[in-house]
Amino acid sequence: MRLLSFFVNRQERLGIEHSGRIIDANYACRVMLFKQGKSAPERLADALLPADAVDFLTAGERALNQAREVIKFVDEVSAAERAEYTYGYQDVRLLAPVPHPGKVICVGRNYHDHVSEMKREVPKIPVIFAKLANTVCACGDGVPFPKVSEQFDYEAELAVVIGKSGRYIPEENALDHVAGYTALNDITVRDWQHRTPQWLQGKSFDKTAPIGPIVVTKDEIPDPHKLDIKLWLNDELRQSDNTSQLIFSIPYLISFISQVMTLEPGDVIATGTPGGVGVAMNPQGFMKVGDTVKVEIQHIGVLQNHIVEG
Amino acid sequence: MRLLSFFVNRQERLGIEHSGRIIDANYACRVMLFKQGKSAPERLADALLPADAVDFLTAGERALNQAREVIKFVDEVSAAERAEYTYGYQDVRLLAPVPHPGKVICVGRNYHDHVSEMKREVPKIPVIFAKLANTVCACGDGVPFPKVSEQFDYEAELAVVIGKSGRYIPEENALDHVAGYTALNDITVRDWQHRTPQWLQGKSFDKTAPIGPIVVTKDEIPDPHKLDIKLWLNDELRQSDNTSQLIFSIPYLISFISQVMTLEPGDVIATGTPGGVGVAMNPQGFMKVGDTVKVEIQHIGVLQNHIVEG
Repeated sequence: MRLLSFFVNRQERLGIEHSGRIIDANYACRVMLFKQGKSAPERLADALLPADAVDFLTAGERALNQAREVIKFVDEVSAAERAEYTYGYQDVRLLAPVPHPGKVICVGRNYHDHVSEMKREVPKIPVIFAKLANTVCACGDGVPFPKVSEQFDYEAELAVVIGKSGRYIPEENALDHVAGYTALNDITVRDWQHRTPQWLQGKSFDKTAPIGPIVVTKDEIPDPHKLDIKLWLNDELRQSDNTSQLIFSIPYLISFISQVMTLEPGDVIATGTPGGVGVAMNPQGFMKVGDTVKVEIQHIGVLQNHIVEG
Repeated sequence: MRLLSFFVNRQERLGIEHSGRIIDANYACRVMLFKQGKSAPERLADALLPADAVDFLTAGERALNQAREVIKFVDEVSAAERAEYTYGYQDVRLLAPVPHPGKVICVGRNYHDHVSEMKREVPKIPVIFAKLANTVCACGDGVPFPKVSEQFDYEAELAVVIGKSGRYIPEENALDHVAGYTALNDITVRDWQHRTPQWLQGKSFDKTAPIGPIVVTKDEIPDPHKLDIKLWLNDELRQSDNTSQLIFSIPYLISFISQVMTLEPGDVIATGTPGGVGVAMNPQGFMKVGDTVKVEIQHIGVLQNHIVEG
């Protein structure tokens, strides 16, 4: 299933991409329940298929099954009726697929070619850091160029979205805790990242974590360690690698991070970026106002943003 | 005003400490509005004096004025009636005064004696790092000793709670963005903090950010840079300093952090810890299961926690 969130009628709504359109999942569920003669279909739909992504993920397999029923229902109604609770991409404003994740945990130095271009050693222990709530934004959003820096860099990353809470998760069960996968651009203000020992101030400028456009549920990604990952700055291919090159695998990272903290539905783990970042080029190649930056991950899609005045 | 949050009847509620008791602010407001003959007093109270701390802070001066009216109302009713919407501390479970802050931003190396005991240089630029959502807990909570470490350390800190959102805040207006002050214990897993270049993994174990017990609004703290700050481990005074010794002042920190990120109501900034941490002692003096740790800040109160099996 291809999950997303969008903004329509001044509301945040969970969507399912299906046959090129976006189903308002909660609303379609409400109509379906009404037609089935259920009483209080609105409240029932809110409980069974919540419009908020974290609530939906928290409901787990039950909500996913409900969503599958809704897709079947939508396929069977008339085109006129379907138009009532489905949208074209041009009709809505996309949000991050999880607009309000409880945590965004990033992994540094997790591809060999990136480690070597940054002249670091291959880590023996994963390096983790955070991006804060103000960083999360959507595919299509303008990302403000920080007034206070000239080193605005990109980092294409495969992101894992947690579907089931857990602590001390064994590596062999780790994928049970995954809802799905998406793309994240870990946009980084390099000079601010490196002027103190802690990266946070270079990693938490507003809207520097575009996420999306879609969370593809794990059943549709046969192997998350076999995905091409690419980044274009305007028409120039800057990063091109495959998630087979991850130093620490996704199950290892989930198990490792869960030694520290309880992972919760909706939490996002960004698994690190391959080689090709702007700061490591000669001459250095940072982003500037007017640029378009695109992350493409196989089976997931294209996360595109443009840089605007800060 | 002395604001807190508590859990009663399976609900999170905003409280006001007054005359040694806790007023359920939203519920008392509802009763007051009902007695004033207002229609829909429940919905009106939810709008004027929300039970959620972030919503309350977001409402700003209007909600604070409403709360002042509520205190007057509670003072005037009979003791029997007052008992309906006030509680003794023994009747409730405290929560962090802001149970779900959008961000917890910590400042490292911000007291001279701590910088020197850690054998670091005085920073020219504030060092900031994060504690994630899973760390937030309350006064009185048991803090789990991590299975995976033996170096469980404390850090007493004055914390600032943001009351008004802002970006690029000038230092001279920074205190306009403060709602009030509280205590925070930045509990740290030292070996995990230092085994990679990024501190996050030592700073984000579950429940390692006890906050509270109370947010004292800024009108009751004449000068946040003149507060005694102390920490006891069991009966031993480990840290004792005054916020006059902060390297970067509170207005400077707010202005600095807002260069990076939009600050929002409910965000917490922990301003750093004075000398006396366990890792810097000779021999080192970490916390163990069964210990009690107390942070006391002048005009704010005592934040007390105990260490339990992880």
